[in-house]
Amino acid sequence: MDIQAQLNEVFEALHNKCALIHHITNYVTVNDCANVVLAIGASPIMADEQSEVEEMVGICAALVLNIGTANERTIVSMLKAGKAANAKGIPVVLDPVGVGATPFRRQSVAKLMEAISFSVIRGNMAEIKTIAGLEAKSAGVDSLEEESDGAKIALNLAKKLGCVIAITGKIDIVSDGDSTYALDNGDVALTKLTGTGCMSSSLIGSFLGASNHALASAIAGILTMSIAGELADKSQGMGTFRTSLIDAISQMDAKRIMSSAKIDFIK
Amino acid sequence: MDIQAQLNEVFEALHNKCALIHHITNYVTVNDCANVVLAIGASPIMADEQSEVEEMVGICAALVLNIGTANERTIVSMLKAGKAANAKGIPVVLDPVGVGATPFRRQSVAKLMEAISFSVIRGNMAEIKTIAGLEAKSAGVDSLEEESDGAKIALNLAKKLGCVIAITGKIDIVSDGDSTYALDNGDVALTKLTGTGCMSSSLIGSFLGASNHALASAIAGILTMSIAGELADKSQGMGTFRTSLIDAISQMDAKRIMSSAKIDFIK
Amino acid sequence: MDIQAQLNEVFEALHNKCALIHHITNYVTVNDCANVVLAIGASPIMADEQSEVEEMVGICAALVLNIGTANERTIVSMLKAGKAANAKGIPVVLDPVGVGATPFRRQSVAKLMEAISFSVIRGNMAEIKTIAGLEAKSAGVDSLEEESDGAKIALNLAKKLGCVIAITGKIDIVSDGDSTYALDNGDVALTKLTGTGCMSSSLIGSFLGASNHALASAIAGILTMSIAGELADKSQGMGTFRTSLIDAISQMDAKRIMSSAKIDFIK
Repeated sequence: MDIQAQLNEVFEALHNKCALIHHITNYVTVNDCANVVLAIGASPIMADEQSEVEEMVGICAALVLNIGTANERTIVSMLKAGKAANAKGIPVVLDPVGVGATPFRRQSVAKLMEAISFSVIRGNMAEIKTIAGLEAKSAGVDSLEEESDGAKIALNLAKKLGCVIAITGKIDIVSDGDSTYALDNGDVALTKLTGTGCMSSSLIGSFLGASNHALASAIAGILTMSIAGELADKSQGMGTFRTSLIDAISQMDAKRIMSSAKIDFIK
Repeated sequence: MDIQAQLNEVFEALHNKCALIHHITNYVTVNDCANVVLAIGASPIMADEQSEVEEMVGICAALVLNIGTANERTIVSMLKAGKAANAKGIPVVLDPVGVGATPFRRQSVAKLMEAISFSVIRGNMAEIKTIAGLEAKSAGVDSLEEESDGAKIALNLAKKLGCVIAITGKIDIVSDGDSTYALDNGDVALTKLTGTGCMSSSLIGSFLGASNHALASAIAGILTMSIAGELADKSQGMGTFRTSLIDAISQMDAKRIMSSAKIDFIK
Repeated sequence: MDIQAQLNEVFEALHNKCALIHHITNYVTVNDCANVVLAIGASPIMADEQSEVEEMVGICAALVLNIGTANERTIVSMLKAGKAANAKGIPVVLDPVGVGATPFRRQSVAKLMEAISFSVIRGNMAEIKTIAGLEAKSAGVDSLEEESDGAKIALNLAKKLGCVIAITGKIDIVSDGDSTYALDNGDVALTKLTGTGCMSSSLIGSFLGASNHALASAIAGILTMSIAGELADKSQGMGTFRTSLIDAISQMDAKRIMSSAKIDFIK
């Protein structure tokens, strides 16, 4: 099945099922994540108490783990929720925000990756290189990496981990270790708004919860954000851009994705 | 005094007093809650450290407890703040978000209800049925319940607990155990935006802090949200709807409520 | 060098360097703080885990500590981050939100001030008077103080602490213990939106991270917020005002500041 047909399928699945998406995520962008999950047609639950996350994830269709403002307590919650999700066959997305910035983040992500099988890991180039064990140049939570090696890095890491790797940047790369795609949509304004990466991960989780198709969900989630970024009003400033971005996400559908998507099959 | 006169009174009270409303609430929708409290003319304080909540609630006019992202630490803070509020005669609102979803939530709400006398409890049908000890169908934090039995459930629970019960949904039911009202305002777009329930509870807290009239405050808070939802622009998408909703709340007054409210006295 | 030239310099510095600004801040307004830091041209990092804040601040150009929803855990993180910043010569901003409201806040701020040298402390009159050891009238996190003594209080406290003191209100006062300025921009709508104080502190941190010029950064940060408040659309309600305020901040530059600023040199 070609990628267009698969994208149609995940949008169809989302349309037919209001999937509950459990998040253990950061407090900076959590409200935007909840609103984009609703805007695309799924339903968010945010809960991080250790004594409830196993039951909470059990009633959900997907789990999104985002370490943006993680602490010792919430990393334990993520481990519990992720293991419970794996045991029940519920797909898990990892957003390793700023993983290279501190030993705490590197060690926490190492623990998560050892304990949990992820369906999709989405990060910028510096984050994914850090996970791949490569030297990475970053500035805090932003990547300073060249993107030219992205396809090889994504493909190799996807093969090694047995999950979909999504590297977002000027060109987005998505690989399941077999097929690798480059996506050339988006707008530079998306880098001037907090949480567009987090929101992309939540959108991936939304498609994944409805379809359990990891590769197409990663591509659909990223394209939803980047094409919404193209459509959104950039003429007034960043407040209007944000409002207009959520407007565009709430009106996104397979048809709009198909007519705007610039997808290259790399290998 | 008829309900219209009571609504006029709570709006008048709010106008005359910039009531401080202490919240211990979730980090998903906390910013929206703060902004609607300001928009309606009260003043929000969010604070959850155990060693300060008793003093903090002591300088406030009402307390709103919302368990959306509660954890073991913040439940203790809620217990302390709620007891201190009761001791000083400061009214307390409970928003039992997703109470049926996990044992942790059920037990936490049971503890809160045992230790604290609430003035108003606002939830969706599944949450209120869970509190009433009835079987409830929910999907995460959303209710899947029929609303036909709402009036009886609200009335009986209000009598039993001696507080106002507000069940929000397509039709909203509010009862103080004596009088029961059905409110038929709102818009389906409100279900596609995160935090409209939380914001309603914060609006109830705002009116309650100014007036200490539980029944009219519950009705005024719910009508403010649902009529703002009717007035808000739904033509552009969910980003614009959210902005326009806050616009409408900040321009709400007794006159606009009276001219739009669909209130049925049930019993 | 006159203040206009200094303001030009800090805008120029911000333009030339995308400064990383580490925040340990409250969960009510954190998203707005992140977005204004991006809007003005710097880059935000929010992280509060005790075991990573020392490394995190080490890769940043400035640190903003905001006690709005601080708890025992995050106060320890603030102490660690602040000391690490001092050791590396990274400037630190303190926003003592509601410091007078509870003993926990007063004691926490006392600990922070004993352990950390701040470059700028920004608060309302009640907060600054509390820090100065004077009697202060406040309502929760809002000041009820007269502003007439502001210049003397700011000057004396700045001298005593060896840092810039910024008192924001109808008239804003900024002093470095040598020069004292009164700023007469702004709009009353800014008091009806949550987080405009927090955002001002984050803007100050952004200029400070780029320039390390405390006095001019404090003035530039405050003027950015207050002039944006003047420019923003107030005709539709508080939702539109918020959107429009972020628009105006993202379009702010030295020229717009210079043409609108009402700066009085007091002494």
